[in-house]
Amino acid sequence: MFSKLCNTQQVRICVRKSLGVNRRNIRTKPDFTKNTFQVSRGDYNHLLDEHVKYFRSLLGDNRVVMDLSDLEKYNVDWFLQVRGCSSVVLKPKNSEEVSRILSFCNKERLAVCPQGGNTNVVGAAVPVFDEIIISTELMNDIISMDDNSGILTCQAGCILENLDDFLAKRGFIVPLDIGAKGSCHIGGNVSTNAGGMRLLRYGNMHGNVLGLEVVKADGTIVDCLSSLKKDNTGYHLKHLFIGSEGTLGIVTKVSLQCPSRPTSRNVAFLGLQNFEKVLKTFRLAKVKLGEILSAIEVMDDTTMDFIKERNHQCSPIGDYPFYLMIETAGSNERHDEEKLDGFFEESMQKGLVLNGTVASEPNKIESIWSIRENITNGYKSCGGAVLYYDISLPLDNYYRIVDEMRIHMGQSCVRVFGYGHLGDGNIHLQIQLKEYSDELKRHVEPYIYERITALKGSISAEHGIGFMKAKYLDMVKPKSSLNLMREMKRLMDPQGILNPYKVFQ
Amino acid sequence: MFSKLCNTQQVRICVRKSLGVNRRNIRTKPDFTKNTFQVSRGDYNHLLDEHVKYFRSLLGDNRVVMDLSDLEKYNVDWFLQVRGCSSVVLKPKNSEEVSRILSFCNKERLAVCPQGGNTNVVGAAVPVFDEIIISTELMNDIISMDDNSGILTCQAGCILENLDDFLAKRGFIVPLDIGAKGSCHIGGNVSTNAGGMRLLRYGNMHGNVLGLEVVKADGTIVDCLSSLKKDNTGYHLKHLFIGSEGTLGIVTKVSLQCPSRPTSRNVAFLGLQNFEKVLKTFRLAKVKLGEILSAIEVMDDTTMDFIKERNHQCSPIGDYPFYLMIETAGSNERHDEEKLDGFFEESMQKGLVLNGTVASEPNKIESIWSIRENITNGYKSCGGAVLYYDISLPLDNYYRIVDEMRIHMGQSCVRVFGYGHLGDGNIHLQIQLKEYSDELKRHVEPYIYERITALKGSISAEHGIGFMKAKYLDMVKPKSSLNLMREMKRLMDPQGILNPYKVFQ
Repeated sequence: MFSKLCNTQQVRICVRKSLGVNRRNIRTKPDFTKNTFQVSRGDYNHLLDEHVKYFRSLLGDNRVVMDLSDLEKYNVDWFLQVRGCSSVVLKPKNSEEVSRILSFCNKERLAVCPQGGNTNVVGAAVPVFDEIIISTELMNDIISMDDNSGILTCQAGCILENLDDFLAKRGFIVPLDIGAKGSCHIGGNVSTNAGGMRLLRYGNMHGNVLGLEVVKADGTIVDCLSSLKKDNTGYHLKHLFIGSEGTLGIVTKVSLQCPSRPTSRNVAFLGLQNFEKVLKTFRLAKVKLGEILSAIEVMDDTTMDFIKERNHQCSPIGDYPFYLMIETAGSNERHDEEKLDGFFEESMQKGLVLNGTVASEPNKIESIWSIRENITNGYKSCGGAVLYYDISLPLDNYYRIVDEMRIHMGQSCVRVFGYGHLGDGNIHLQIQLKEYSDELKRHVEPYIYERITALKGSISAEHGIGFMKAKYLDMVKPKSSLNLMREMKRLMDPQGILNPYKVFQ
Repeated sequence: MFSKLCNTQQVRICVRKSLGVNRRNIRTKPDFTKNTFQVSRGDYNHLLDEHVKYFRSLLGDNRVVMDLSDLEKYNVDWFLQVRGCSSVVLKPKNSEEVSRILSFCNKERLAVCPQGGNTNVVGAAVPVFDEIIISTELMNDIISMDDNSGILTCQAGCILENLDDFLAKRGFIVPLDIGAKGSCHIGGNVSTNAGGMRLLRYGNMHGNVLGLEVVKADGTIVDCLSSLKKDNTGYHLKHLFIGSEGTLGIVTKVSLQCPSRPTSRNVAFLGLQNFEKVLKTFRLAKVKLGEILSAIEVMDDTTMDFIKERNHQCSPIGDYPFYLMIETAGSNERHDEEKLDGFFEESMQKGLVLNGTVASEPNKIESIWSIRENITNGYKSCGGAVLYYDISLPLDNYYRIVDEMRIHMGQSCVRVFGYGHLGDGNIHLQIQLKEYSDELKRHVEPYIYERITALKGSISAEHGIGFMKAKYLDMVKPKSSLNLMREMKRLMDPQGILNPYKVFQ
């Protein structure tokens, strides 16, 4: 047993549970995006009474929200960084209603902003100006579930956690797990190609989505809702909509391949000396844990300092330069334990891991995960500002970007720290500032994106481009690829009414 | 141990190894497609001396093949069902040469047919008329391999088995395994979204391809060759080319996520009473074998009759109405054995499985797999003809199509049999005829496609549309989806020079 090999006999975590404070009570809402960012309103028509009249005739009064206080939560993003000024939220219940809304908006040249659970962190899901918000929150029916094949079909507005609860009762699992699971919608997950913790094990949305129903800008309902694991008939159109952030169509139904739910789960928390050993431990974990390795997360000591300071949680194993969180998920408790023992023994013998602890009870697993999952909660109360970068890099360069940014920032920031999904090459690089300043932001961007591009990485690993990174797309994407994207957009949405100012500037 | 529970103590297979007979010596080559099928040549220019002169100036004499005897193997498909009459094969070595060829052909309105290993079974990889064949066979460099992440980048003409051999030495595996692995090219696998045996475990090409370089019809090299597991910057264009059968662009480079190579492998061969028990055993296998389940194949007794008669192989466990082949692939031999024991015990106790045997030694595993893999070899020598349908269906309807076809065919055929990748809902339905007749074919098609569509299945699970099924695409695909496909084709290849007569009629 690992606990015999290292100093820590059991999980000892000083966790203060979720602070339970509404972030919007702590931080003031941001100024309107149109005032903060340099962006011009597109040549769209403005909402008129006759438009509202049509929407009310289609949806009834209750599903056309225009009260200013109700509108606010749809206009402001999750990170409180952007704020639109839409005056109407529409809440269709089915694809036909979405189709009619879009057909009408297309004819009237009214811009729209599709919105799921509004948990996007790059400003993809809120309007920039006065776009009409189309919310999927009432489109939350589970349509079918095939217990033989594990294929689930549902409407786009189903909340991820609700789907997982539904599947748990039948012995299945959603192949996607992200921090926002309690409120994000599956349609939004598809539209942003959400990544998260389990990607290492189950792959991304392109591998798990079997079919989609999508409404195009002109209102055409495109039926790619195949519920088959294999269907090689013609172009695989559904992939166009996965990750296109609502700019090519609105996803209305999703068919998903769901794996069997693992019955045994463990999480190990390890302390390591340097990043070279982190990489070697990762390779060893892949060999020794094999098919049960389900997540491998890394964080540096500076991240742990931030966690201690802001979230009052601390490492359960004392202080080390790097920490790994390794999750296993399998079908046989004893086998998994044996595999973990073998891995721990070898990692200690080889001098890769300095200390560690493992949890197999659900509440202890949650406690360990909460260290990692609560990091962003700390941003709310840190007084200044945290510049947040979701990037991916080849593993050789994975941590190099953090070291480089520390040198680049010097004394001008509180700290630079990095944590992320090591198994997927995805690092979340954070720069904590005493207080936000445009000058400091300009010191960081576009420098950081240039460096990421030079290191053969991606400026957006899993969060997308949205509004916040749209101005950098030209910089990082090959021209041939960008031209084709623009051609696609023109083909699918000639008037550009779908989620304007997002992805492309 | 399973062997204690059932009648068979060890593998006893009367295998006659691969017959080693060149199928083209047995069966005569088919008549030209233009004579056999109703299809009109498109409005393309004919090859002129000046065109050949340009190609020779670009590639040299050796890589412009025009000798009639050399041309034949590029003009006839693997199943000897279609035959083009191209008079030139071009063999570029890199993307720039492909780009120049396409740019020239596009200007000169010359139709082209991209070809990899020419193992396609729906006539996607050979010309229909005189299209210029662009072969990827000299584009076979491995560009890079990252041993930390398991990410391989290579040219499109690499043979699948060569890639797997290369990866085996480094502890990795290609996530794709198909019967034609000894000659198919990875670029062809991508272009046809190849499926195969391991799809249940590792997913399809959409989940495993990380990046592509593709040359468009006008010669533009589109760089989507990201070698990152996560890259959410803009539209995920690479998916457009996966499965579009060379009609939207020619794949020139591929970046692939390769999993760790399993160190323990077992194959079980089981006899079962009926299809209901087949399904129940499948569900039990998913639960009891969990993360090590890597393939689950089914075949009926009629398939076994065909195998006995044509390939002189027989069931190692005696005769049963249905057979399952279950493969496990894991990292710990003892764990896998224990999981298999648990599965066998429960499957016998529940009366699901009547008999079975398991193999763990490589040569015995190969022997069992060879029963399944050699089926199509039997077609060569069966005298008449075998109508071959690659379809997928929801599991409830999976075997129903075979029963229905038996009733529909009555005494007019030798036998109807079905086998396939049960785990993926993919069944290969075969109709063996005494001799081929157009009348019998018309009795089968389009009836079979109508039934598959009615049963919510796909008329092409993993082999694509190619030339052979192009005329049925309109019948099975929703109009909205089909319209969008045609728009894509027009956008990407306005002159329609890329692999004409394929996918669309």
